[in-house]
Amino acid sequence: MRDVVTQLAESRIREVANEGLGRNGVLKFWFGESDEVTPDFIRDAAIASLQAGETFYAHNLGLAELRSAIATYTEDLHPGRGTDHWFERLAVTSGGVNGLMLASQMLVDAGDEVVVVTPVWPNLVAQPRIMGAKVKAVPLRVVAQGADTGAWALDVDALLASITPSTRMLILNAPNNPTGWTLTRSEQATILAHCRRTGTWIVADEVYERLYYAGDTGNGAASSFLDVAEPDDRLIVAHSFSKSFLMTGWRLGWLVLPATLTREVAKLIEFNTSCAPVFVQRAAVAAMQRGDEVTPALVAHLKACRDTLVPLLQAVPGVRLAQPKGGMYAFFSIDGQPDCLNVAKRLVREAGLGLAPGSAFGTEASGWLRWCFASRDLERLEEGVQRLAGWLDKA
Amino acid sequence: MRDVVTQLAESRIREVANEGLGRNGVLKFWFGESDEVTPDFIRDAAIASLQAGETFYAHNLGLAELRSAIATYTEDLHPGRGTDHWFERLAVTSGGVNGLMLASQMLVDAGDEVVVVTPVWPNLVAQPRIMGAKVKAVPLRVVAQGADTGAWALDVDALLASITPSTRMLILNAPNNPTGWTLTRSEQATILAHCRRTGTWIVADEVYERLYYAGDTGNGAASSFLDVAEPDDRLIVAHSFSKSFLMTGWRLGWLVLPATLTREVAKLIEFNTSCAPVFVQRAAVAAMQRGDEVTPALVAHLKACRDTLVPLLQAVPGVRLAQPKGGMYAFFSIDGQPDCLNVAKRLVREAGLGLAPGSAFGTEASGWLRWCFASRDLERLEEGVQRLAGWLDKA
Repeated sequence: MRDVVTQLAESRIREVANEGLGRNGVLKFWFGESDEVTPDFIRDAAIASLQAGETFYAHNLGLAELRSAIATYTEDLHPGRGTDHWFERLAVTSGGVNGLMLASQMLVDAGDEVVVVTPVWPNLVAQPRIMGAKVKAVPLRVVAQGADTGAWALDVDALLASITPSTRMLILNAPNNPTGWTLTRSEQATILAHCRRTGTWIVADEVYERLYYAGDTGNGAASSFLDVAEPDDRLIVAHSFSKSFLMTGWRLGWLVLPATLTREVAKLIEFNTSCAPVFVQRAAVAAMQRGDEVTPALVAHLKACRDTLVPLLQAVPGVRLAQPKGGMYAFFSIDGQPDCLNVAKRLVREAGLGLAPGSAFGTEASGWLRWCFASRDLERLEEGVQRLAGWLDKA
Repeated sequence: MRDVVTQLAESRIREVANEGLGRNGVLKFWFGESDEVTPDFIRDAAIASLQAGETFYAHNLGLAELRSAIATYTEDLHPGRGTDHWFERLAVTSGGVNGLMLASQMLVDAGDEVVVVTPVWPNLVAQPRIMGAKVKAVPLRVVAQGADTGAWALDVDALLASITPSTRMLILNAPNNPTGWTLTRSEQATILAHCRRTGTWIVADEVYERLYYAGDTGNGAASSFLDVAEPDDRLIVAHSFSKSFLMTGWRLGWLVLPATLTREVAKLIEFNTSCAPVFVQRAAVAAMQRGDEVTPALVAHLKACRDTLVPLLQAVPGVRLAQPKGGMYAFFSIDGQPDCLNVAKRLVREAGLGLAPGSAFGTEASGWLRWCFASRDLERLEEGVQRLAGWLDKA
């Protein structure tokens, strides 16, 4: 067994969730998924495919129909290059996480230096470590005053200073899980220009692109590196059907890469999972073709969730947080409660409230808690805040 | 981009298959899958799960129901330790290939030495290379005389001599794709004893375990390393639902590992694909619970396929092959035709016959061709041999 694998942390979120095993009535906001079932028409497309007997291997890069649908989707969001352009740059993957792992396999030799902006979904740090990389974390900082007090923000200069010609890969997740931090187009352009000079690959986890509520971009989505990059830039963008189409359990995502890498990633897909099931891909084609029936309503609902939860949390004495611009998480600290793992476990046992500990996402987020606000019923969020407030009253 | 990825060979099988694009009437025996659709009751279980709304994340190691079903299946084939024992040693993976990749990630640091017995499915050689390993191939040898003339056989002493305390991992695939070579229990015990001395991990790809036709073992299946190993031996056995349950396109498999590694592999699953879809796992539970309705009939049919194809091929002038004991491939050479890639491409274009070139599986198999005999209709096999014979007549 490799030391590097032994040293990978087990999920602290799962450690908290284990406290809930066998307990009834726990309100679970710990995982990054909505409690809404995938829409009927998407499931029906998979069912029709299964009934038609589509149970054989598929192309490594995905069904041509699905790549076409994703190309159209990408051109709609980032217009100008045409669907044929995007088609040649797309690879369907077995989930967003799988696409990100393929990116690490493609780029990272053992001993390479990788920079990651944290706090972040722990998988993004683990993947280059599995490939033997040295991972350097560049932490976001909590804004101490002004309108954004309690928000997490990037010190762009500090990030650029950490990226040198020795840096093989920069991993960014914005809109960010767990903090809700986002990148502006101008920040993306600045980071890209610097990485062009250092020869560093940018791997951008943009799975929360559509879950953006600020309304300050042309397409309604968060700004993407695809909007500032040239086709041959050292850039890989990872996407998932999980968040924008309510398809977490389907394990389907895609990568956008330079066209020269498409054949290379096809080899890696062959050696990792070979392909995604055809019937899963058929569901995704339906999701893309009728995405207007899903994503806009979902984003509006998530905004309502955010706008319900955040003010209620802000009204709880001792709780500190800013309103996130994107993503599906409220990330907050509680005065006088620095041990978030212990707090999260006690909240499960003593209040029936399931949250994720901030320490799962980076040491700088110790003392914070993540609340996934993707809830079908807004009352669940209100009930959760009551449980938190009641528990704090007694604590 | 890493050199090691650029240097990975693209699939030569796909290179041949590309010759068939746009051609009608090609008889395709190139891929390792049956042309039979997954049985209805298995598809129905997935459909019921989708209709019930099981579209959320699952446990990294798989549904408890599925692990229980696989534990029962394993205990039936390899009795004595009990289902609880096996349950603790099982991890559900996103296909057999994914399980094997996880094994390489778990065991192989960059620079480690890995021994692989070839010819073999090329993915098994590529996976440790992706992890930065130095791969040493130990070739099987073609039997030149006696009853087994034309079969591929292992020189056990040569294999043992190649495995030293520097050897981190030994990869074996028996019953073997493409040659049909199998290991006897006594050979497995000898190899295991040697690897205990050198501290070498054995990764056994036993996905063809059930596709065994010799009838010389107690359980009807090919001998397994699980039959000779102790629970804490350095052994990982990879399995798949693809071959024994006609589920290639579902991308589901499992690993049997020492119980101490189960939590470790759960972490790697989280970071690679997170989990397999619940509805796919429900299908697999059905496949396991009613496996008696699928696998015995499938094996009997594949034996009929083999017994149809092999004598017909042996009767073609210049064609040389032995009857394989296991697997689903006839592997043969043609006198005077050393360039198998070219022959395979010409057969597609000029005879409408799709075979896989032996060179895809190892340099020592240049000049050989692989024919997947998993065909619903035996006439397809007969028609294929006629096309081959007719082409050779004119060649």
